[in-house]
Amino acid sequence: MSNLPTNRTNKAKQTNGNGKANITVEDKLDPKVSIDMEAPEFKDFAKSMVDYIAEYLENIRDRRVLPEVKPGYLKPLIPDEAPEKPESWQAIMEDIERVIMPGVTHWHSPKFHAYFPTANSYPAIVADMLSGAIACIGFTWIASPACTELEVAMMDWLGKMLDLPSDFLASSGGKGGGVIQGTASESTLVALLGAKAKKLQEVKAEHPEWDEHTIIGKLVGYCSDQAHSSVERAGLLGGIKLRSVKSENNRLRGDALEKAIEKDLADGLIPFYAVVTLGTTNSCAFDRLDECGAVGNKHNVWIHVDAAYAGSAFICPEYRHYMKGMERADSFNFNPHKWMLVNFDCSAMWLKDPSWVVNAFNVDPLYLKHDMQGSAPDYRHWQIPLGRRFRALKLWFVLRLYGVENLQAHIRRHCNFAKQFGDLCVADSRFELAAEVNMGLVCFRLKGNNERNEALLKRINGRGNIHMVPAKINDVYFLRMAVCSRFTQSEDMEYSWKEVSAAADEMEAAK
Amino acid sequence: MSNLPTNRTNKAKQTNGNGKANITVEDKLDPKVSIDMEAPEFKDFAKSMVDYIAEYLENIRDRRVLPEVKPGYLKPLIPDEAPEKPESWQAIMEDIERVIMPGVTHWHSPKFHAYFPTANSYPAIVADMLSGAIACIGFTWIASPACTELEVAMMDWLGKMLDLPSDFLASSGGKGGGVIQGTASESTLVALLGAKAKKLQEVKAEHPEWDEHTIIGKLVGYCSDQAHSSVERAGLLGGIKLRSVKSENNRLRGDALEKAIEKDLADGLIPFYAVVTLGTTNSCAFDRLDECGAVGNKHNVWIHVDAAYAGSAFICPEYRHYMKGMERADSFNFNPHKWMLVNFDCSAMWLKDPSWVVNAFNVDPLYLKHDMQGSAPDYRHWQIPLGRRFRALKLWFVLRLYGVENLQAHIRRHCNFAKQFGDLCVADSRFELAAEVNMGLVCFRLKGNNERNEALLKRINGRGNIHMVPAKINDVYFLRMAVCSRFTQSEDMEYSWKEVSAAADEMEAAK
Repeated sequence: MSNLPTNRTNKAKQTNGNGKANITVEDKLDPKVSIDMEAPEFKDFAKSMVDYIAEYLENIRDRRVLPEVKPGYLKPLIPDEAPEKPESWQAIMEDIERVIMPGVTHWHSPKFHAYFPTANSYPAIVADMLSGAIACIGFTWIASPACTELEVAMMDWLGKMLDLPSDFLASSGGKGGGVIQGTASESTLVALLGAKAKKLQEVKAEHPEWDEHTIIGKLVGYCSDQAHSSVERAGLLGGIKLRSVKSENNRLRGDALEKAIEKDLADGLIPFYAVVTLGTTNSCAFDRLDECGAVGNKHNVWIHVDAAYAGSAFICPEYRHYMKGMERADSFNFNPHKWMLVNFDCSAMWLKDPSWVVNAFNVDPLYLKHDMQGSAPDYRHWQIPLGRRFRALKLWFVLRLYGVENLQAHIRRHCNFAKQFGDLCVADSRFELAAEVNMGLVCFRLKGNNERNEALLKRINGRGNIHMVPAKINDVYFLRMAVCSRFTQSEDMEYSWKEVSAAADEMEAAK
Repeated sequence: MSNLPTNRTNKAKQTNGNGKANITVEDKLDPKVSIDMEAPEFKDFAKSMVDYIAEYLENIRDRRVLPEVKPGYLKPLIPDEAPEKPESWQAIMEDIERVIMPGVTHWHSPKFHAYFPTANSYPAIVADMLSGAIACIGFTWIASPACTELEVAMMDWLGKMLDLPSDFLASSGGKGGGVIQGTASESTLVALLGAKAKKLQEVKAEHPEWDEHTIIGKLVGYCSDQAHSSVERAGLLGGIKLRSVKSENNRLRGDALEKAIEKDLADGLIPFYAVVTLGTTNSCAFDRLDECGAVGNKHNVWIHVDAAYAGSAFICPEYRHYMKGMERADSFNFNPHKWMLVNFDCSAMWLKDPSWVVNAFNVDPLYLKHDMQGSAPDYRHWQIPLGRRFRALKLWFVLRLYGVENLQAHIRRHCNFAKQFGDLCVADSRFELAAEVNMGLVCFRLKGNNERNEALLKRINGRGNIHMVPAKINDVYFLRMAVCSRFTQSEDMEYSWKEVSAAADEMEAAK
């Protein structure tokens, strides 16, 4: 091997006065001529980016949380085409502030309260750098054993942090196990497709003469009328009927679910899948998993638990009462990339029996077979796409560099902030809570009609000092204040409430 | 705003002698107490990681390309649970070599020739750092206008580099446009679901009395028997019949496609979707898009072009003859994250009429509506998941820091390396090519039966100096040498051929 070139030697770089290569297209066919950014330049560039990132995040409060640009702002700022020749990295660094930042909504500002948190931490950013450097595609064990095996281990660490029933954990030695999906949407869809395959097999065994499409036409899934839109979307993508069951105080109850199932059975339909939501997007309400799980088990309906946002809170024992009945579920999903400081994408999903998913969609070409099959999961069979990044590194870094205690503290602080904001709201007689304050979410509104509240939100977002989005339950429109940023302090809650109050003052004055 | 805390001040960190915080769980409820890694530590950690990354990539040739670990190697190397308290980042850096690297298959080694390339470049790594810092979720325009608008612009830059028909480009002002998907698998599935929705609507207009599930039961899709397994998988996931059409010299021809379609029409089925592969996984063969496109248009069958690997080569005009007929396609996909130096994930997809996908799966909850809807794509409607990262930054950095000329050089060099390896193979009378050398792929085998070649590959991979995977066409087993690494030099091709030759020598001697 002594005659082999190293990457660093033999790379001629003929440059002209300004440092840019002065070589022809033909010259570039010579592999000894450098066309990539080389390591010394990368180090300068990447370390500049590290400094930029720290500067950006540590001073994010100084930026207007919502951009003021209009649609189409970006195109005029850049050329119409890619350049023929390489530019300098310094030019790109300058363009971040000129081209990108004016159009960025700053999700990590303490003034950002829209949707739910998306996670962002320094350990996760560094882990992703390593993931990018290794840049393996973990579709089989042999494609990079560490990629699969660290994921198996991290999903056990994480499952233990939530005290999940051991049936879900690979370490229990049973069928169960965890996998990192890209998003909760995909987890919901994967569970649905597994449930569909399971029910198809069961029904065909009973009715071998029935056509597959006839059976599919009879399948029915269920969820709360408060469930996330991705559940409805999974039904559309999965080509099955999905029934939205009326919630009671925003919670799916066992009796309502049972009633819906029994009606469909009486009509000759085939209930097969139900999503139980722990922490709805609208108001962070919790379905009664204990009740719904029992109903699901009784009727052989696959129970998928969607705890995308709130699941992170289950690392704190005081919130685990919401998980009562988890042993009855077939699949469970929550997003560390929402509220557990692991940058997107990292959606954690556990399956009691992965084989329904694995076998249903297993197409196994020769080039992906390997000698070690069966001894570790081939994760490509557990997900929609084929390829996958080394995402377990992000979990490993975050869990170790925070430790369970600090992650619990992060959750508890956010819940306290929400209480603080809720108290400020209740103390102002113009306002009312639209739902009880749960986890890190406050749902509130001006007393009065929807139009007043639509106007209020428009004014709040127009002032641009904080950012929120609305929701509607039973035709009642309200505002959502989600605690998002890991930089949040008590003063930020006071500030945000003052903004809301000031916007309401403005509205009064404007009349 | 003067009274607001900055992120850096007011963070008390009480430490004991070894620098670790000596504070209680209750103390941690105080937001003024630090629980996150702070900026100075992040800078040290991240810059160490930059140095580590450069060291790893620049010396990757020194590492055994395939790991020697057995399944289950990793679990004993780490604790069974997450730590309660935070560890130091230095401990994690040490663990990379101890825990991770022994289990890494080094995809970017010049000795890695398996599957197809997955891209890895310094510009893309740095872009992903910025993406992680901004950490926005680009599901709507307002969620971060720059995220959507840079993607629209980059998909136009990229489309122009391939000289795609203007119907596909947003800049043409028509319906068409591009989107970054996670993988080719997802692109194939998204196109299938759009085609399904389109055909359902057309058929229902003609036959309003037909049940949706009856129609779906009649739908048929088509692809070559050489198409990627993800096409078959998309058919399974999409719940439709997929017909594998016999290829001619590994290429899907128009007459074979037309014959299959006409037979199905005669049987009362409904052809609706066909995948034309440009650059098959087995042997980099090219379907006749010109012929198949004409057939598809004639029979109102959606034509999706899958050029996952080879599409990158179309930035070189000399390869665009394979694209003949592209104006007849409805959707087109290739992966810059395979062969164009943009780290996974970055799968580029263009749709002539995105509305079929957008309208079919649009569930539009209130919290995602915004005032600027309609003026820029809301990319969540163009893809399977809801959330999405700021991936366009990777394209922007790579296109600017390489320039079109250097990206073309990268492609041309790899094609020359493949020719070099192919010539070495042909010069050795024990061996033969299993298919013509195309792009960066050489398909070759020992003259003789399959068993000899299975044994050869086992020996090659067992020696562990280079790594390849096999394929099989018409029951003929062969080895695939894909040029993958951007560090590849001519000496590496000589080395890899010598390895193959040495393995064959060993086999002879062993008899």
